[in-house]
Amino acid sequence: MSKMKTRKPQERQKSWRHRRQGQPAGQVPGDAAGTDTGLRAPWLYGIHAVLAALVNPARRCRKLWLTQETAAALAGRLPAELPPEIVARGRFAEILPPGAVHQGIALLADPPPAPDLADVLQAPPAARRRVVLFLDQVTDPHNVGAILRSAAAFGAGAIVVTERHAPEVSGALAKAASGALETVPLVRVTNLARALDQAGAAGYWRLGLEARAERLLAGAAPAGDIALVLGSEGSGLRRLTRERCDDLVRLPIVAEAESLNVSNAAAVALYELARDDAAA
Amino acid sequence: MSKMKTRKPQERQKSWRHRRQGQPAGQVPGDAAGTDTGLRAPWLYGIHAVLAALVNPARRCRKLWLTQETAAALAGRLPAELPPEIVARGRFAEILPPGAVHQGIALLADPPPAPDLADVLQAPPAARRRVVLFLDQVTDPHNVGAILRSAAAFGAGAIVVTERHAPEVSGALAKAASGALETVPLVRVTNLARALDQAGAAGYWRLGLEARAERLLAGAAPAGDIALVLGSEGSGLRRLTRERCDDLVRLPIVAEAESLNVSNAAAVALYELARDDAAA
Repeated sequence: MSKMKTRKPQERQKSWRHRRQGQPAGQVPGDAAGTDTGLRAPWLYGIHAVLAALVNPARRCRKLWLTQETAAALAGRLPAELPPEIVARGRFAEILPPGAVHQGIALLADPPPAPDLADVLQAPPAARRRVVLFLDQVTDPHNVGAILRSAAAFGAGAIVVTERHAPEVSGALAKAASGALETVPLVRVTNLARALDQAGAAGYWRLGLEARAERLLAGAAPAGDIALVLGSEGSGLRRLTRERCDDLVRLPIVAEAESLNVSNAAAVALYELARDDAAA
Repeated sequence: MSKMKTRKPQERQKSWRHRRQGQPAGQVPGDAAGTDTGLRAPWLYGIHAVLAALVNPARRCRKLWLTQETAAALAGRLPAELPPEIVARGRFAEILPPGAVHQGIALLADPPPAPDLADVLQAPPAARRRVVLFLDQVTDPHNVGAILRSAAAFGAGAIVVTERHAPEVSGALAKAASGALETVPLVRVTNLARALDQAGAAGYWRLGLEARAERLLAGAAPAGDIALVLGSEGSGLRRLTRERCDDLVRLPIVAEAESLNVSNAAAVALYELARDDAAA
């Protein structure tokens, strides 16, 4: 639970968004809407999610569907390079899952290149300290999307998830992120414990959020960069994840209450860290 | 923006959960799973939501469906009074909407009686101050459910919504509330502005959350009871709602970020008020 904090000299690095790993500049994938990682690109939907993707220079946008009504509402806010197809509302069922609240807009676009953990750990901080979130098996796409949105709101640098037991980047996740998928790096790692080792070596203090922890988060974060670690709602932090944390803390929840939704817990914790940082 | 604060003498009242308005004690609705308000009862689903409803004395529980697997997992945690029907997993599609994450358990139960605004405004406080949330046209059932859950976690007394432009109490809302639907009164009013008048007259300081407000929430709440007012994500507080607020405040969001999800904003605001109250 204690660790010497070292800080490497900060180099100002290129934004992750402008790097395409393993791909020469300017080269784009073929017509199959493939991606750098070989995954099939999902259709994005919803006004905020699509408008944000359209202005992300790291995305190649392929098809834009609009209803007549949404096209009229967004006149002047759409890029000239990608002429939209005006389609009847009923046709969205061909490309989106049932019940998707698409607001009359959908976009097929290649995902941006996968960000690298080392890069995001060293990215220029948005505030006095860097905060990077580590999610241990949070599987609900709406929760991960809402956490991306809160990360953008409170200036967190990135979200790290595992390749397995984390949701794919889907239209539902992007909708919940409300544009933040374009601005907050979502890093996938094979092994979360090793990623936490890497964060520790990079000088991050690793705070795990756990309902049974003795100390409260408020006042527990030392100055400097923070890796905030959250587990799944069902089972919390796994043992190997917990053992990598420098400290375990909790939020002040009424004893009889079960717990918070994980995206709400993340929002509260990010707020507390930003509040603490601003007050320092 | 200023108002004399008066406080009526507090009377300790019966919990809202034990009052059935307009219905003699002991009388229960007929077999049609009707309710006090004439609404059709929804099937509840999910382990937390159903277990909490089963132990709520204000609910009449009618049918309990379990898969064999969930019955085994919950052995000893189910009440003896309501023998469950063990059903195949596939049969849940008969009673639940597509995609419902039911965890092998569903319950048909009459809703508890509708709580009354005057009662919840005067209910014994869980902490130094009472906090009651007012939601202005928040329509998503997952958000309202998650806000109930956060209200339980941070000791808020009730949530007030409008009869129209607010979600019905559905299985999806109850699932998102994770049991808090049974413990946090959800009050429906015809007119939110009049309800805020009533809260003001009862001595509550009415704080509206608005992205463009000048002051931050932190430090803005006076001692005493707080009515926290949140608008919809799309359009914020309506004019008549905003005019009823004694003060407008915001959360410290990064300027470029669009906004927070409304349930995350509610969680952060409830946390800040509880934090402030504990520090007082």
